[in-house]
Amino acid sequence: MSDPLRLGIAGLGTVGAGVVKIVRQKAALLEARTGRRIEIVAVSARNRDKDRGVPLTQYAWEDDPVKLATRDDVDVFVELMGGSDGPAKAATEAALKAGKDVVTANKALLAHHGQALAELAETEGRVLRFEAAVAGGIPVIKALTEGLAGNEIVRVLGVMNGTCNYILTRMEDGGLTYEEAFAEADGLGYLEADPQLDVGGIDAGHKLSLLAAIAYGTQVDFASVELEGIGRVAIEDIRQAADMGYRIKLLGVSRMTGRGLEQSMAPCLVPATSPLGQLTGGTNMVVIEGDQVGQIVMRGAGAGEGPTASAVLGDVLDIARGTRLSTFGMPATLLKKAKAARATTPAPYYLRMALLDKPGALAKVATALGDAGVSINRMRQYDHTDDTAPVLIVTHKTTRAALDAALAAFPATGVVAGEPVVLRIEHV
Amino acid sequence: MSDPLRLGIAGLGTVGAGVVKIVRQKAALLEARTGRRIEIVAVSARNRDKDRGVPLTQYAWEDDPVKLATRDDVDVFVELMGGSDGPAKAATEAALKAGKDVVTANKALLAHHGQALAELAETEGRVLRFEAAVAGGIPVIKALTEGLAGNEIVRVLGVMNGTCNYILTRMEDGGLTYEEAFAEADGLGYLEADPQLDVGGIDAGHKLSLLAAIAYGTQVDFASVELEGIGRVAIEDIRQAADMGYRIKLLGVSRMTGRGLEQSMAPCLVPATSPLGQLTGGTNMVVIEGDQVGQIVMRGAGAGEGPTASAVLGDVLDIARGTRLSTFGMPATLLKKAKAARATTPAPYYLRMALLDKPGALAKVATALGDAGVSINRMRQYDHTDDTAPVLIVTHKTTRAALDAALAAFPATGVVAGEPVVLRIEHV
Repeated sequence: MSDPLRLGIAGLGTVGAGVVKIVRQKAALLEARTGRRIEIVAVSARNRDKDRGVPLTQYAWEDDPVKLATRDDVDVFVELMGGSDGPAKAATEAALKAGKDVVTANKALLAHHGQALAELAETEGRVLRFEAAVAGGIPVIKALTEGLAGNEIVRVLGVMNGTCNYILTRMEDGGLTYEEAFAEADGLGYLEADPQLDVGGIDAGHKLSLLAAIAYGTQVDFASVELEGIGRVAIEDIRQAADMGYRIKLLGVSRMTGRGLEQSMAPCLVPATSPLGQLTGGTNMVVIEGDQVGQIVMRGAGAGEGPTASAVLGDVLDIARGTRLSTFGMPATLLKKAKAARATTPAPYYLRMALLDKPGALAKVATALGDAGVSINRMRQYDHTDDTAPVLIVTHKTTRAALDAALAAFPATGVVAGEPVVLRIEHV
Repeated sequence: MSDPLRLGIAGLGTVGAGVVKIVRQKAALLEARTGRRIEIVAVSARNRDKDRGVPLTQYAWEDDPVKLATRDDVDVFVELMGGSDGPAKAATEAALKAGKDVVTANKALLAHHGQALAELAETEGRVLRFEAAVAGGIPVIKALTEGLAGNEIVRVLGVMNGTCNYILTRMEDGGLTYEEAFAEADGLGYLEADPQLDVGGIDAGHKLSLLAAIAYGTQVDFASVELEGIGRVAIEDIRQAADMGYRIKLLGVSRMTGRGLEQSMAPCLVPATSPLGQLTGGTNMVVIEGDQVGQIVMRGAGAGEGPTASAVLGDVLDIARGTRLSTFGMPATLLKKAKAARATTPAPYYLRMALLDKPGALAKVATALGDAGVSINRMRQYDHTDDTAPVLIVTHKTTRAALDAALAAFPATGVVAGEPVVLRIEHV
C-alpha cells in the first residue's frame, strides 16, 4: 500500500465542509478506489470559530492559506476560497512553487490567470486541476480533456449558471417579472454577494473560457468572451419566444472558426424541444460537439455542497491514482493565443423594439434592416395603449456585423424608441 | 519527447477503420495532447483484401490476432473483433501476458470474462480499458470510474441499445407494429447478425453489467441480469403508456440494495417528460445517481464509426498520457461477489391482459391481485370485438415477488387468456 495522500484545504464554506465530510465518511471506499489513504492534515479559513457541521479539531489550523499551501506535510493544496486574486492566487502560486499539486474550484482565478498558473504548474512538474470550477458535479472537464481527446471540438455550449436558469424558468412558468424572479432567487440564497457575477453572465463566462481553452487548445481568453446578462430579458420576450417554439437561456457558446475563436455568454433563444430548451430550474447542461463523436450532452447539478465536493474529490482521487495531466489538456507552452472573433458565424436573430406611432414607422425599420443586408423572416406588431407600438422581428441568418449596422441606422429613422432587445437564436 | 505509442489493431470493421483514420489524420493533435506520437504498427482482420476506405499497406499484416497481440513492436493491443470467446479472448489474454496494455470495444468479452481478465491484467501490471464497450461515444466509463469516484453510487440506469430505442420510437411516432419497425431497422442495417443480441436485450445487458461492476465495486455478473427483450411490446402498450404520460424504453437499471444487487434490462415505462422519456431514435443515455452528486445524465451516439472510434481513442490517449487505472475502478481482487437480488425494490407495474368475456372476470383478476397484496391504482377495460376484452391495470408500488404470486394465480381464475404483458414503471 502506498503512502497516504495528504490534503491541505483552504476555504471551509459549503464546498470545503463537503469535501471534509466525504474524506472522513468514505475513507475505506476512497482507499479501495485509489490504493491510497486520503488524509486531511491541515485546514484554513477566515474564521476559526465558526461551526461548519464537521469536526475539524484534529487537523492543523493555519490562518494564512499561503502557510497552509507550503506545509511540508501537504501533498495536495485544495483551494476553495474563491476570488481571482488575493489569497487564492498567492496560495496557489506558493503551493505549486513548493512542489504541491493543486485542486481548485475557482473559475475566476483560472479565467484570469489560467495560462500563467498552467505554465507555473508545468515548470514545477505539478498538476493543477479544476473540475469543480465548471458546471458543478458534471464531470465535463474530464470528458473534454480525456474522454473526447480523439476529437477536434467543433462547438461547446451550455447553460452554466443555475441561478440565471432559475430566474428565467420562474419568469416563464411563474409569470414573474425579471425583478420578481430575481428577488425570489435572492431570497433563496442563490445569488453571489455581487449579483452581477450571476445575472451579468460573468461567472458563466469564466466557465466558458476554461472550456474553450481545452476544446481548442488555446490560451484562456476570458477578456474576449462577449458578455451579456439577463437583465434586459422581459417576460414579453419569454412569451414571444415560447410562441415560436423557443426558450430563452443564458447560453454560453464557443466555436473555432476560420476567422477566429468565438465566445459568447448571452441570453439566446434555443429550440424548446432541444435538451437545452428543456432544462429548467437550477440544473446545468454542457453540450460538446466533436468531429468524431457528434453531440454529447451532459446534465447535472451545477452547484451545491455535494455536487461540487464530488468534483473536487474526482480531481483529488485522480492525483491519488497517479494520473498526471496538463491543466488544459496539452502542455501550456503549446496552447496558442487565439484570435478573437465576434459572432462572425451567421445566425438568425430575435429583435424586439418599441416603434413610435408614426405613419411608415414599420417600413423605415424594415428598410434599415434591408439596407444592411439583413432579411426578415417574421415581423409582428402588437396592440398598444401608449404612444409606442411593440414590434417583434425574427431575421433570417445574418452576421452580427450586418445586424449591428442596421441597429446603428435605427436612431436616424426617428421611429425607434429606446434600445431594441437583440437575442441570437442558437440551433442545437 | 517520449517514445511513440505503438498500436496493434485487430478487427478492421467500421470501428477499426475509424480508429485508423483518426490516428492518421490527427497525428499532430494527438501528439500535442499526449506528448507522444501515436503509431499503428500492425493490423489484423479476417479478410486482407477487403477495401476499408483507409490505406493499410504501410502497416504489418497479421492473419492471426494472437500473433499481432504479442508482437515485440506493439505497446497497446486494440481489440475490435468482438465475440465473447474465440480469437478476441485468446488475443486479449495473450496480449496481457506479453506485457501489452489492451483497449477493447468488446462488451460480450468483458461481460463474460471481465473478472478473470481484470485479474490477469493486474497480475501482469497492465491496463485493460473498455470505454467503447458501453454507450458508444459517451465517456460514461470514465465519468463513473474517475469523475464520480468520490460518490457511493445509488443507481445506474439507461438506454444503451440504439436499435431497440429506434424500433420503439418508430412504433410510437410512425404507428408501426413491432414487426414493421423491426423490418425497418433491419433494412437500415441496425441489427446485429443475431438480432436477439439487440431486441433480446443481451447487448444492453452486457453493458449494464459492466457499469454495475464499476458502480458498486462488484465482480461483473452478467448471468444475474434479468433480461427481457422488446418483442412482446405491442403498439397498444405504447399508446396506453403515452395516454398516461409515459414512454416505453428498453431500460437498464442497476441498484445496490440491502438485499443484494439488482440488475435488470427490460422494457419499462418512464415519465415522458424525463430525459430518458424524451430520448428518441438511436441515441443512448446513461443516468448515474451518486450520493453526493445527485443525478448526472449523459447522452450521445451509442454506435457508429466516429463515436465508437472516439471512445477507443479516449482509452488509447489515456495510456499515452501515462494514466494507469484498474479495469473496474478498483483492484480486481477487491471486487466483491455481489448477491443477486431480483427486483426487490417496490415499483408500480403496468399490466395488460386479455380477459375472457365471462361475468365477474374483472373481479376475479382484481381479487387475485388483492390476495397477493398488490393494490390497483388504475384499471381500464376496453371495447372488444372478439371474445376477449383487453384490460389494462396499473398497480401501486409492489414487489415483483408479490406481483409474480398474483400472476401465478391468474390461470386458476379461468378468465385470463394468454400471458399478460408486465412492464415496470421506473421513476427518474
